[in-house]
Amino acid sequence: MTNNEFPISKPYLKTKSLFPENQETPISFIERDSVDHPLFYRRNHFSYPRLSHHNYWLPINGAIKKPKIFSLKEIQQLPAKTIKVVLECSGNKRKFFKPPVFGEQWGNGAISQGYWKGVPLRILIEKTELKDDAKEVIVVGYDFGKNPGIDGIHHFARSLPLEKALHPDTIIAYEYNQKPIPFKHGYPLRLIVPGWYAMASVKWIQQIIVTDSKFDGPFQSMEYVYYPYKDSNHDSAPVTIMNVNSTIQKPHNGQILDSGKHMIKGIAWTGMGTIQMLEVSTDNGQTWSKAAIKKDHHKGYGWVSWFYEWSAFKKGEYTILSKATDSYNRSQPMSPVWNQKGYGYNGVDCIRVKVE
Amino acid sequence: MTNNEFPISKPYLKTKSLFPENQETPISFIERDSVDHPLFYRRNHFSYPRLSHHNYWLPINGAIKKPKIFSLKEIQQLPAKTIKVVLECSGNKRKFFKPPVFGEQWGNGAISQGYWKGVPLRILIEKTELKDDAKEVIVVGYDFGKNPGIDGIHHFARSLPLEKALHPDTIIAYEYNQKPIPFKHGYPLRLIVPGWYAMASVKWIQQIIVTDSKFDGPFQSMEYVYYPYKDSNHDSAPVTIMNVNSTIQKPHNGQILDSGKHMIKGIAWTGMGTIQMLEVSTDNGQTWSKAAIKKDHHKGYGWVSWFYEWSAFKKGEYTILSKATDSYNRSQPMSPVWNQKGYGYNGVDCIRVKVE
Repeated sequence: MTNNEFPISKPYLKTKSLFPENQETPISFIERDSVDHPLFYRRNHFSYPRLSHHNYWLPINGAIKKPKIFSLKEIQQLPAKTIKVVLECSGNKRKFFKPPVFGEQWGNGAISQGYWKGVPLRILIEKTELKDDAKEVIVVGYDFGKNPGIDGIHHFARSLPLEKALHPDTIIAYEYNQKPIPFKHGYPLRLIVPGWYAMASVKWIQQIIVTDSKFDGPFQSMEYVYYPYKDSNHDSAPVTIMNVNSTIQKPHNGQILDSGKHMIKGIAWTGMGTIQMLEVSTDNGQTWSKAAIKKDHHKGYGWVSWFYEWSAFKKGEYTILSKATDSYNRSQPMSPVWNQKGYGYNGVDCIRVKVE
Repeated sequence: MTNNEFPISKPYLKTKSLFPENQETPISFIERDSVDHPLFYRRNHFSYPRLSHHNYWLPINGAIKKPKIFSLKEIQQLPAKTIKVVLECSGNKRKFFKPPVFGEQWGNGAISQGYWKGVPLRILIEKTELKDDAKEVIVVGYDFGKNPGIDGIHHFARSLPLEKALHPDTIIAYEYNQKPIPFKHGYPLRLIVPGWYAMASVKWIQQIIVTDSKFDGPFQSMEYVYYPYKDSNHDSAPVTIMNVNSTIQKPHNGQILDSGKHMIKGIAWTGMGTIQMLEVSTDNGQTWSKAAIKKDHHKGYGWVSWFYEWSAFKKGEYTILSKATDSYNRSQPMSPVWNQKGYGYNGVDCIRVKVE
């Protein structure tokens, strides 16, 4: 080590499990508008699938008049669009639920965003000519295995109602941030469903099946279901659209600060419309102030960055909250809606700091 | 991606802060007897110091008859010893304190171990001939800066009482795991104080000063002090010897398991003597069973690995605890001793899992 080689400090993924691989994005340290793929959170149900791009074909079957098999090249030659999309695991922030719930104990980093390029699923489906009784579109991944609590071996597979499948921004993506999608994130083809929690954005697409009935695969009939009561499965509801949400990136929870001015900053996102307002409280919710939202971040299905200059001249302990409101007038609740499996946490974000 | 290139899943450091750099070891994923340096936890008070090994000298001054300046080469030619040592930040597990305390919110990964090679500090000091009134040995690091709550700029510096400084296993290390100490861990010379929390093991040694009085630098008069009461500094005590402690590595907190047999495994360590017993409870402390301790891990100042086969045939939620006892008959308490700054957490380790 000489004066010319100064050590670099960089953030890493936060490891939750390795088999299957589940790692969080160090979201407090993400400052750029899109997350570089090495820091994009990884969420798997199974070990990575084995597949070869040398022999890759995408079949579309089912309630269609003209079943088709697309080559990668064909897909890449169809009209494409590039959209900025937040992908958030529906278990993001699960570890903050009280009482605690089981499953991967995600903190606030099961979320990332970037630019996805692909062909609208609609365009592929139109080429196959839907039958009149078509109802849902199932997208099956190459990944498969055994899940605790679910009998048998299953491929990861999810269906979309026809309306969402045909939405012009629901795409079959083949690029992330202008490069082929990294293998761990779904290479060669990944479904991207903007606005929905990311379990809908199936990786490593193996086939697409149009059905005339309601698909009840375990990843939508058992997993990814809100069960609001601890001891019964009454009033269950599927996990779909992302809740309005925000995360404080700086300062860090527990941080000790010198007295003076400090920038409080973070991100906010929603699955419906756009973020309209971000409020910050530095007195545990007694009073709220509007944060500034970075204008240039306000496009597509991305998160917005926000910041608020806090004058912290009085020594003491502070509880800082952030609360986002979207264009459908949805706001983060003070307490999130508890559910058995811990999905959709969106209580106001909360950190505690000490000014010395 | 072809069938020949299967993606590797590996654990990373868990980033707490970057300026200064504080990152945890992913301790649940450490299976080897020593931690490879890229996964060794990083704990800094300041930005990394700038120094050059081309021009490195170690001076020893103060209450000695023959002040000396050692070259690296001289130090490396003195009689050396290699010892396995656990280094644990005294803030390890701070985030588990209730009520919460401020400061870096370390989980269970501010701990690592490996093989340190160096010359006993005693040998260097003997060459300088102590004066009769010598009382403490101050080791000063090259790192310096401003700490929140402490006025002025300070180098990181700590003193040892003469007895501990002259202990034959207190060494000035220059190798970690048979290679020069990585820069981030103290290159070229780091003090290693076995049995004490790691704030004592000063990195990047700039100088050594023998004193005839009690040193009161801020990193032992203000920081690294147990203050057992929230609103007063009565009954304070310095942080020195590591408490007896253990960590459950597998399963993970919150994990959902299939019913059947599962191996519960972890590590245990102490700053006094050796680990004599590790008990596991799978019913939240109502009953306890002895875990097996790996014999080959029982040497030097390292941690021991332990494992316990759990027959989990009944579905339900379980609270699993681990409790270590050392050869001084110190055991982990059910609740740790709370203190203002959150040092020395050693309550029984606790995870919750669900068997489905």
